[in-house]
Amino acid sequence: MFSTMTTSAQDSTVVRIARLQIDSTRLDLYKEILKEEIEAALRVEPGVLALYSVAEKNNPDHITIFEIYASDSAYRAHILTPHFLKYKTSTKDMVLHLDLSEHQPVLLRSKK
Amino acid sequence: MFSTMTTSAQDSTVVRIARLQIDSTRLDLYKEILKEEIEAALRVEPGVLALYSVAEKNNPDHITIFEIYASDSAYRAHILTPHFLKYKTSTKDMVLHLDLSEHQPVLLRSKK
Repeated sequence: MFSTMTTSAQDSTVVRIARLQIDSTRLDLYKEILKEEIEAALRVEPGVLALYSVAEKNNPDHITIFEIYASDSAYRAHILTPHFLKYKTSTKDMVLHLDLSEHQPVLLRSKK
Repeated sequence: MFSTMTTSAQDSTVVRIARLQIDSTRLDLYKEILKEEIEAALRVEPGVLALYSVAEKNNPDHITIFEIYASDSAYRAHILTPHFLKYKTSTKDMVLHLDLSEHQPVLLRSKK
């Protein structure tokens, strides 16, 4: 269970936050492609612990993805998967701005 | 289980992202107070689904908290709880900058 897993694995856990601005005329399509990528990653990659994607309420073309990986190598494996590369290629022209940052857990807690 | 819960409850789910800059001379104390608050919220508030706090790798005094609530009323109840008010009061002088934003889920997925 995830809330337990993060407790024990927290030392090696890597969190990345992607903040994107999407071409508003293609926002619905972008979100469909993103959802497909997230579903695939969670289904087939053991080291992808969570991918949470949200749209800012007052600026819905501002997307944030909060990404939790079991380790740095799990992250590096993720960005070489076919589903990630498909997402990256097919959304390339929709992404107007991308800011990526790496984080270390202070405390990650979710309901059991 | 959280990964299932968010799927069915996603329409009312509220995500808030807090981005803080903390006085670096009191960062350790700030993190201890924050952890205590997170543990209490997850333990006693049914509507607090997840609180993920992280420190930016290259700027460890930059803290981000990714907050998932079951509804807007769950969020509004949270900020009136004794543990939140204690956190807020005791860290007031440590927080140099606070940016709060509200978000709607695109897709929230975590390992089962």
